[in-house]
Amino acid sequence: MADPRSAALPLRVLGIDPGLAVTGYAIVDERGQGGALVAHGTVKSTTKMPRADRLARIFDATRALIEEYRPHEVAIEQQFVQENVRSAMAIGEARAAVMVAAATSGLPVFEFAPTSVKESVTGWGGAPKQQVAQMVLIAVGLTEIDGPADVTDAVAIALARIADARMEIAMARR
Amino acid sequence: MADPRSAALPLRVLGIDPGLAVTGYAIVDERGQGGALVAHGTVKSTTKMPRADRLARIFDATRALIEEYRPHEVAIEQQFVQENVRSAMAIGEARAAVMVAAATSGLPVFEFAPTSVKESVTGWGGAPKQQVAQMVLIAVGLTEIDGPADVTDAVAIALARIADARMEIAMARR
Repeated sequence: MADPRSAALPLRVLGIDPGLAVTGYAIVDERGQGGALVAHGTVKSTTKMPRADRLARIFDATRALIEEYRPHEVAIEQQFVQENVRSAMAIGEARAAVMVAAATSGLPVFEFAPTSVKESVTGWGGAPKQQVAQMVLIAVGLTEIDGPADVTDAVAIALARIADARMEIAMARR
Repeated sequence: MADPRSAALPLRVLGIDPGLAVTGYAIVDERGQGGALVAHGTVKSTTKMPRADRLARIFDATRALIEEYRPHEVAIEQQFVQENVRSAMAIGEARAAVMVAAATSGLPVFEFAPTSVKESVTGWGGAPKQQVAQMVLIAVGLTEIDGPADVTDAVAIALARIADARMEIAMARR
């Protein structure tokens, strides 16, 4: 069975590192052995806003990115290691705002554990943050990416999905 | 300052007990010393569906309830006591799907801890589930409410919000 995505190459992925206070995002196109960074940035809010409005902001921003850049897929971090249930719930809420925006736009959502992202980008699931950031820069052919670590993480997540998709397509063509 | 909600009486509240597998909902109107149950039910999904689609179902159902019944407010349970971060994240995700649907519809969201709901409905924050269920039935003038405990909990949450709103309006009129 042909992979429906193969018709849509080059693959464009919206990578998201979700957080209630800071959500990092990156639009990455498959290119060469890595990817091309099309757009990136953050969605921020403070505790001064009602929680529902903070989540609606993440939802609206994700919807706007999907409309403007028309990615084929959304890749999101799946972070279970949290200090406490309160912060786990906050991350879950931010994740859901993104997933609902993607699913109601008809886009598939791929979830990646942090170790999977590290392994995909550096070859080792225990790689330090610094090394992940360096490999991300090499993969997208840049010397720096402006913005906080959340943005670089979003690029890494998109690259992890692109690597998986590349593998899936190669397998389907064998 | 006049309470803007006082113009909208009788208050209609959408109460939600959020869960990834089962979300209970209830539309309750303020009436007499209690409320009138206008509609109630559940939104269900199984692990066979992608997580994003399960959340989109909760989002879509909440949006549909808001459109059909035009509640003035949404009241939702805020549950921090969880066995582990994984289940806390799942509840957070379901909560967010509801909150995003409410906020993007322009409705205010009121969050209640389970103990606050119990205290509001029975007068005691440590009341057993059975007693909460009995008091809910008395408040809405019914002998039974069909559906799982999630539905009764949703009614209780809506009643807790109605009790608070009644108090706020009484205070504003003094």
